[in-house]
Amino acid sequence: MPTPSNRGAMMPESPIRKLVPLANKAKAKGLTVYHLNIGQPDIKTPQVGLDALQAIDRDILEYSPSEGIRSFREKLVDYYKSFKIDVCVDDIIITTGGSEAVLFAFLACLDPGDEIIVPEPAYANYTAFAISAGAVIKPLLCTIETGFALPPVSEFEKLITPKTKAIMICNPNNPTGYLYTQQEMNQIRDLVKKYDLYLFSDEVYREFCYTGAPYISACHLKGIEQNVVLVDSVSKRYSECGIRIGALITKNAQIRQDVMKFCQARLSPPLLGQIVAEASLDASKDYMLTVYNEYVERRKFLIDAINRIPGCYTPIPMGAFYTVAKLPIDDADKFCAWLLDEFEYEGQTVMIAPASGFYTTPDVGKNEVRMAYVISKEELAKAMIVLQKALEVYPGRRL
Amino acid sequence: MPTPSNRGAMMPESPIRKLVPLANKAKAKGLTVYHLNIGQPDIKTPQVGLDALQAIDRDILEYSPSEGIRSFREKLVDYYKSFKIDVCVDDIIITTGGSEAVLFAFLACLDPGDEIIVPEPAYANYTAFAISAGAVIKPLLCTIETGFALPPVSEFEKLITPKTKAIMICNPNNPTGYLYTQQEMNQIRDLVKKYDLYLFSDEVYREFCYTGAPYISACHLKGIEQNVVLVDSVSKRYSECGIRIGALITKNAQIRQDVMKFCQARLSPPLLGQIVAEASLDASKDYMLTVYNEYVERRKFLIDAINRIPGCYTPIPMGAFYTVAKLPIDDADKFCAWLLDEFEYEGQTVMIAPASGFYTTPDVGKNEVRMAYVISKEELAKAMIVLQKALEVYPGRRL
Repeated sequence: MPTPSNRGAMMPESPIRKLVPLANKAKAKGLTVYHLNIGQPDIKTPQVGLDALQAIDRDILEYSPSEGIRSFREKLVDYYKSFKIDVCVDDIIITTGGSEAVLFAFLACLDPGDEIIVPEPAYANYTAFAISAGAVIKPLLCTIETGFALPPVSEFEKLITPKTKAIMICNPNNPTGYLYTQQEMNQIRDLVKKYDLYLFSDEVYREFCYTGAPYISACHLKGIEQNVVLVDSVSKRYSECGIRIGALITKNAQIRQDVMKFCQARLSPPLLGQIVAEASLDASKDYMLTVYNEYVERRKFLIDAINRIPGCYTPIPMGAFYTVAKLPIDDADKFCAWLLDEFEYEGQTVMIAPASGFYTTPDVGKNEVRMAYVISKEELAKAMIVLQKALEVYPGRRL
Repeated sequence: MPTPSNRGAMMPESPIRKLVPLANKAKAKGLTVYHLNIGQPDIKTPQVGLDALQAIDRDILEYSPSEGIRSFREKLVDYYKSFKIDVCVDDIIITTGGSEAVLFAFLACLDPGDEIIVPEPAYANYTAFAISAGAVIKPLLCTIETGFALPPVSEFEKLITPKTKAIMICNPNNPTGYLYTQQEMNQIRDLVKKYDLYLFSDEVYREFCYTGAPYISACHLKGIEQNVVLVDSVSKRYSECGIRIGALITKNAQIRQDVMKFCQARLSPPLLGQIVAEASLDASKDYMLTVYNEYVERRKFLIDAINRIPGCYTPIPMGAFYTVAKLPIDDADKFCAWLLDEFEYEGQTVMIAPASGFYTTPDVGKNEVRMAYVISKEELAKAMIVLQKALEVYPGRRL
């Protein structure tokens, strides 16, 4: 039997995946499991998107253009304009989810061995795509004590080597819910300019900014237009995770030309998803506002509840629908497994993501978890009672 | 501006893509362009697939499992059984088109610098996926004179180095329509065993074998079960190219485990496409037979017509819906551009794929083209008249 690739072995195993069999076991025992572990919203897809699906009247489900359907890309121009992101149709390439946009950005911009600085905790799959492309992620540690704010420029500069070719951010942030300030974005802009780096900016949660603080897109930064690659997706904003429609957006013609070669190799992004996504751009203001208000309420509720549990602390997330919390425990991987495997409270338990999957710096964030508020307030309430009860009896409790 | 990756620069530019602006220009002039250049069939998608689409009644278009929807994978087990391919549900991983199956097979099995032997002419995008994974394709030249049969084992062995890790075949073949014989498949099996190689086998055209000769799947070969990775797709067999649903199938648990890490990183294959593909497995025998018979007729017609044009020759393809033909010309890239840019016959012209895109051996197949019979017989007839008239006046004519 031939040997598999080193790349396969290097690919991180998600700590959440390891919990799945335990969650299934808990459910098989008849327990109710509240899922705070996932990024799959329970929010309804906009009706206009679902209607477009049922209205599809074609004889042949044929290839769409490798760069995506033109009318969809045209409508996206207007959508971005509403966020003061000034792009034209040609700047927008439709991808199979935001995931493919990250992968293609890495493949087109980075050579094996090239380094990407990523503030962490960070979305775990960036590492997976970096490994796929042979690139290396250099984590820049942000801490819960500072609310996951960006460290000073000097900390970035410590990580810069001749191999550094990019900075990657997620804004608003998954997993922390942090929203970068104008000052922080300027700091990133200056670094990008000074060291001539790419800036990959994943902004799929832009609809979900809660504090009145402005959403500063990488595309708003002046003077680095040729360095910026925006990663986007309709998954979260329209609760359409399954249709796999994202976008890669850049004003850099050379990058677009190279990215298009990877797009052409995979022939086309999903046709059906594009039809739904295009229609969903017409989702009513009412729909968007209802969804937004729902998240606002859940966020307030969850953050308050966590911070009221003795020994727990979470900063107030400014965006997205996640928060990272510090719990009075020895080890979040152990605790999250224990919750599913050994604990129950009135026939219920909770599934939470250990933060270990979001850090590549060793031994950091061991007592941290990520919680997503993608379930109803009523369920969040029950989940927080379960969490509190669990922490009272968890054998690995540490204060 | 930071430099793009070498990978981007290495990615081949499809010679067909270069012709697209010329085709658009021809159409703008009012010419009818017969498209023999593409793999997008004009065949109707099965009604049962289209019906499933309109019957989708969900509130949330949520993520599907990273390995694909279980009921779909279960139905695929039966489908493969009908081709005497004996696999279980766990052996099947659903991918975003056959394209992703090739990419993930390469990423999971091959390290940068590893070599894959590919009989050529070959599907051009294998090269693109190999470059993405840092692997190197070593072409094994097959020639039109032998009808694109596999060369003897000794020719394979000349290419084997310590870096050789895989053989990749496409059977029935795109672009040649060749169908590997039992003897050839045994030859491949023995090589795979002797040198402990992976065998990646792209069998997306299995429905389309025309000569009564048996379709020998890589999965039929005894003793190399752990070496075989089957690449599949519903695109061609149900005329569903746009839904982006394929599969990677292997009995090798280690490969599956590694492939699943790449699958989990991209979260899930397209939900909507899976629903359509699953329903399409129930396409009636009548539908499949009608499609088959249509291709049989077109193939006969096209092959006869090509071979009747003075100076033209094509072997008789045994499967798929392509053929590679030798034309009495200096250079197929020039000729195909000239057809669109300078020629017309009664307001019509043809778009054909130069074979240069299917060869990586330099200066080979310069007078060869690939033609796809994915348009109606009536259109094929007109296209062949246009081709004949064009060859009579083409300035680069060579006999």
